Amino acid sequence: MRKVAIVGTGHSRFGVRYEVSLAELAHEAVREAIREAGVEAKEIELSVVGNAGGWSSEPLPAVVVNEYSGLSGKATYRVEAACATGSAAIKAAHDAIAAGEADVALVVGVEKMNESPTPTVVEFIGRAGNYFWEFENFGLTFPGYYALYATSYMFTYNAKEEDLCEVAVKNHYYASMNPKAHFPRKISVEDCMRSRYVAWPIKLLDSSPITDGAAAVVLASEEVARKLTDSPVWIEAIGAASDTSNISRRSTYLSLPAAREASARAYRKANIDPSAPAKALDLAEVHDCFTIAEVLAYEDLGFARRGEGYKLVKEGQTYAGGLIPVNLSGGLKAKGHPIGATGVSMAVEIVRQLLGKVEEGRRATVRHGRGLAHNVGGTGHYAYVTIYSLSRPR
Amino acid sequence: MRKVAIVGTGHSRFGVRYEVSLAELAHEAVREAIREAGVEAKEIELSVVGNAGGWSSEPLPAVVVNEYSGLSGKATYRVEAACATGSAAIKAAHDAIAAGEADVALVVGVEKMNESPTPTVVEFIGRAGNYFWEFENFGLTFPGYYALYATSYMFTYNAKEEDLCEVAVKNHYYASMNPKAHFPRKISVEDCMRSRYVAWPIKLLDSSPITDGAAAVVLASEEVARKLTDSPVWIEAIGAASDTSNISRRSTYLSLPAAREASARAYRKANIDPSAPAKALDLAEVHDCFTIAEVLAYEDLGFARRGEGYKLVKEGQTYAGGLIPVNLSGGLKAKGHPIGATGVSMAVEIVRQLLGKVEEGRRATVRHGRGLAHNVGGTGHYAYVTIYSLSRPR
Repeated sequence: MRKVAIVGTGHSRFGVRYEVSLAELAHEAVREAIREAGVEAKEIELSVVGNAGGWSSEPLPAVVVNEYSGLSGKATYRVEAACATGSAAIKAAHDAIAAGEADVALVVGVEKMNESPTPTVVEFIGRAGNYFWEFENFGLTFPGYYALYATSYMFTYNAKEEDLCEVAVKNHYYASMNPKAHFPRKISVEDCMRSRYVAWPIKLLDSSPITDGAAAVVLASEEVARKLTDSPVWIEAIGAASDTSNISRRSTYLSLPAAREASARAYRKANIDPSAPAKALDLAEVHDCFTIAEVLAYEDLGFARRGEGYKLVKEGQTYAGGLIPVNLSGGLKAKGHPIGATGVSMAVEIVRQLLGKVEEGRRATVRHGRGLAHNVGGTGHYAYVTIYSLSRPR
Repeated sequence: MRKVAIVGTGHSRFGVRYEVSLAELAHEAVREAIREAGVEAKEIELSVVGNAGGWSSEPLPAVVVNEYSGLSGKATYRVEAACATGSAAIKAAHDAIAAGEADVALVVGVEKMNESPTPTVVEFIGRAGNYFWEFENFGLTFPGYYALYATSYMFTYNAKEEDLCEVAVKNHYYASMNPKAHFPRKISVEDCMRSRYVAWPIKLLDSSPITDGAAAVVLASEEVARKLTDSPVWIEAIGAASDTSNISRRSTYLSLPAAREASARAYRKANIDPSAPAKALDLAEVHDCFTIAEVLAYEDLGFARRGEGYKLVKEGQTYAGGLIPVNLSGGLKAKGHPIGATGVSMAVEIVRQLLGKVEEGRRATVRHGRGLAHNVGGTGHYAYVTIYSLSRPR
């Protein structure tokens, strides 16, 4: 198969962005990615747009985004995999290039969540479990779903609310140095503990915000990438998996089985030892839509043993300089979580980290030349684990 | 690149399907396709779900459909390209197999349009031009958009409303023999002419209906396909293109430039002479969302010269036995147009035609072993032209 590299990255400011349209927001990232790649618009053959949609009144986001960025005419489609939309879009474009169907492709993930029409944002996200059986019947919202995980975890492993808050403290600490972050400010465990409950034990500061934002990457085949840059970042492996739509049919609330399976698939492809993956990676961006989700990610990815994930952050092991730095971007928690953009934003962060193009205080030490993105959709409905590498994959 | 074949097809009954849920509807097609392919669910590695969505209250159709069909766990995502969604989903799965990321993949296109919540179906489809500039400001609906094409065509080429009705007559004739069709009954030019105007000169019987339905195909790599069947149908070429979101920014209303470009790309890949493509094809399924759209398709695909498309159907050249039989399934017009399912339904029809598995009266004569699907999204926002072949592509 043909190898696929990222040759350009772009990232909008994340936040509440009433002042721009969906297409303008996307263009902030697209323009930057195309410029960084050093390609002309005419060289792009495929544009895959990651957008969960439903908030905007534009039901055809892909063509709207393409038109504004001067990309009308390209092969294009929209991809959606709930909150893992961005990673699924990267997979689709990756596959097209690996298959020889395109040499240069753009992936743009974009979401404008703060202008949600009927239903409200909270209802809309709540529906993204299983609408018919679980939302309509039980009225579960997303914090409610993740509260099931949090209570199960706390009960089984004797973790405390304060332990979960440690994740928020770390991610806000790094967001404070990221000029693109939605909430670039530090918080303390006390701040988190004092914040109001959304769904016990999840508090406001355990939760990722409702964010508008966009991120983009330009992908290229090996031949084209070699011409464009001396420092391509390769997509080494993609592991994807899914789970039941109904959370009530899952076998456990102590783990997201789809994330476990996706990482197993990615580790296999990248030849990473699943018993010690942190030793092969410089950093990870993981799906911390709520603080409990980051703790589960540590365990599902094999960074920590079952029941010991919460200790990892407490001991500083997921800070820069620790076992494996996690969410040096600020994560979904503090950088923000514009659904369709999130997976692409993870890719942008990892590429820039591997190339040393990140603000100093939140920079990872690059030894292995490898970073991992862990992107979950729904409450573990979808999981994508993507390995990015400075070394050309075998 | 690895070659990709269709090894199984499935098709639900199209119509108003209040009695089934989205997942049950999808499963009618999935079950049939999996059975025909002779694979077990565990062999399927990727499930791509084509669904435009917005009608159903389920915002995560992919996982809902997968769960019901016993496919939880698979790599999966949803693809949307307006009314070309089904073809875009086939492209995504094709690329994954061609790239070596999967050996067996399922594509299911499904749409339940008759249970649309707010906004209404007509408004929702109307938004699928450019919402912000054109729907909100001018209130254009989809028949209104296509009326622009129809008036431009009639004025320029001196075609009459009766000429457009000929398309409806042909497609209803073939639908009358298709047990899966939404409207399996014949109509006359007089019936069409007497039907009420929706947006002059487009009448009710010039228009495709609001349909619920599903279609599915199982794709496999060459190695696996050879094991499963003696009669794989290959995906020989996919041409995809797009156009501006705003119809007011198009250069012509006498053609869909995206469809022209998509067919040029597909013909190039399949080594088909673009000056006489009908000589290399046994049949075509084209995107007749309105009768004018089929006439434009004849010209955009090169079956007729500019301005002469309407004569083709009048002279019987797109009936079985003519120059190139078009829409022997009944087309969107009479078989129905459940948005996400349509492109997949075209694939199912062509595969079954090439294998001689179609009801006798509407069967094409297979000489070249090749069929073409022309699937348009929006008012030419997206176009996908896919060539299916009994011969292994070079």
